[in-house]
Amino acid sequence: MKSLMLVVLGNTEISTVPGISVAGATPELTKLTPPADAEYLFYEKPKIIDVIPVTPDGHPTPAIITKAARELANFPLMIVRGGTYLAPLVPHVHISDYVGRDFRKGPALQEAEEIIARARLFGEELSNTPIEELVIGESTPGGTTTAQAVLWALGYEARTSSAAPNNPQSLKEEVIKAGFERAGIKPGDFKEKPLEALKQFGDPMMAAVVGIALGFKGKVVLAGGTQMLAVAALLKALEEDMSRFMIATTKWVVNDRSATFIDTAKDIGIITYAADLDFSKSEFKGLRDYENGYVKEGVGAGGATWLAVKAGFSPEDVSRKVDELYRRLMELKAT
Amino acid sequence: MKSLMLVVLGNTEISTVPGISVAGATPELTKLTPPADAEYLFYEKPKIIDVIPVTPDGHPTPAIITKAARELANFPLMIVRGGTYLAPLVPHVHISDYVGRDFRKGPALQEAEEIIARARLFGEELSNTPIEELVIGESTPGGTTTAQAVLWALGYEARTSSAAPNNPQSLKEEVIKAGFERAGIKPGDFKEKPLEALKQFGDPMMAAVVGIALGFKGKVVLAGGTQMLAVAALLKALEEDMSRFMIATTKWVVNDRSATFIDTAKDIGIITYAADLDFSKSEFKGLRDYENGYVKEGVGAGGATWLAVKAGFSPEDVSRKVDELYRRLMELKAT
Repeated sequence: MKSLMLVVLGNTEISTVPGISVAGATPELTKLTPPADAEYLFYEKPKIIDVIPVTPDGHPTPAIITKAARELANFPLMIVRGGTYLAPLVPHVHISDYVGRDFRKGPALQEAEEIIARARLFGEELSNTPIEELVIGESTPGGTTTAQAVLWALGYEARTSSAAPNNPQSLKEEVIKAGFERAGIKPGDFKEKPLEALKQFGDPMMAAVVGIALGFKGKVVLAGGTQMLAVAALLKALEEDMSRFMIATTKWVVNDRSATFIDTAKDIGIITYAADLDFSKSEFKGLRDYENGYVKEGVGAGGATWLAVKAGFSPEDVSRKVDELYRRLMELKAT
Repeated sequence: MKSLMLVVLGNTEISTVPGISVAGATPELTKLTPPADAEYLFYEKPKIIDVIPVTPDGHPTPAIITKAARELANFPLMIVRGGTYLAPLVPHVHISDYVGRDFRKGPALQEAEEIIARARLFGEELSNTPIEELVIGESTPGGTTTAQAVLWALGYEARTSSAAPNNPQSLKEEVIKAGFERAGIKPGDFKEKPLEALKQFGDPMMAAVVGIALGFKGKVVLAGGTQMLAVAALLKALEEDMSRFMIATTKWVVNDRSATFIDTAKDIGIITYAADLDFSKSEFKGLRDYENGYVKEGVGAGGATWLAVKAGFSPEDVSRKVDELYRRLMELKAT
């Protein structure tokens, strides 16, 4: 296969603000979600913790979709540590161990340019291989809040999605407004200063994906929901030609009326693909609830499905495989 | 290019035994050599330390050859941290931070199988990409001593080479004999127990290269001198088909009468390539001394030259480029 999938891991302190992120059973456990997601893609269960990441209500990580698509299409995968508390216990490309800080208290990512420079080197090396397409997913709890902050700073009237069925938009906006107040700026003030937007409000995942995308000269599929809108907006502000980029996400993000995925993608000028996954007939409530707005996307689920579809599988095949993987998890749990 | 070069970094406590390694200005500085070599391949000088690695007499690291070949042929490169004291300050694939221990005092690498398993996963992913050939170099101070110990344990009557013009064979043999005594074994006792040989006497570079080579199913060029003989012997003992492997080294290793490169390669049954580099006309004594037995090989110098030759450059082109790089270093130093 001429495509390579990357999953870029990031942490931001923002995920521990109560109510912001459901990408973990508790706010504190969101710190472990990126490495645990990465490990689950390679093994039957994570290593750093004994269970797969779940929401507080027990809905399984979207890594299960990525893993299912990969079991079908067998595409190559590399994990990239953009910046996390802990290293995943699988081989991974180390970019940094910088964690995004709470932007209400100070700049989020002073090291943004260093991360970009390193990630860019990695992207340049990949560019010299026969790999023609990168599909870049992410695992970054709290990342829709940093994404919305960056989009606002760049002047987009965007609302990002959420892994919760009730998008905590008012809390997100409150947090972002506190951040803008701290930085002394108004929405749009960093329209022409993308690196400043990233430094003040971003997270290490964004910086790493921007860097890789700058270094790699082929086609880049940004595999994620509204978080990848922020990455795309940064790339555009950095004057990259948007025609080699695409966002691949899931229908659950596109259908989220609390967010502005399609409108913001149009504003940015990036084409999108939405994986038509349907979990309504799953035998497991944890998966059927995806149809009720839980989880929606993450760990490159939409992009992995895109790769499976390109390899000749249908979204139904992926959905069936997800059920099978979930059954395997339940059996592991039972033993 | 359908080839990817990897440089695997390893440390072993053996490098700090006085007199064993000249891969650093002092025994203690050999700990920094692997990350500094890696950084020099990407930048004008290392980051972790302000100067390139040199022998105690000031002879430059063979990374200068690898860098020269790469500037000509522009092959893609990834650094792999097999197991080192410090992480290199460039993007790299993290396998482990385990360092090989002094095998006179106890087993060298209890974690050998864990390193192999992780590295194998990475090799498997590369196997799914369109990359057809891996060229795997290494930077492992003290590594010719661990290599000779492993070769002896596997039953080869081998003498490994050295970066010093006067190969410290009697010191190496004394150290190895102390190790065999500690482990209670005789040469050849681990003939059919390659993993035990690796655990008792190896280093993390060997374990990582073995793992990658097991996972990657295409052609693998082991880019190094007598250290790669140990890796090849391990792969053979693990019952790999040797026809997909080759060792690429330099003529300086092949011509080293204190070592048994060609004979041992024949015993193992692996084909070899020797880069015909000639530094006798260099304007710099530090490089001309390569012709007098200094340095000889390392950081995949021979394999990088192999890639440059395949891309249409001559060994003379590489030698000239090495001179140019050395001049750049001297100019940096002067400013």
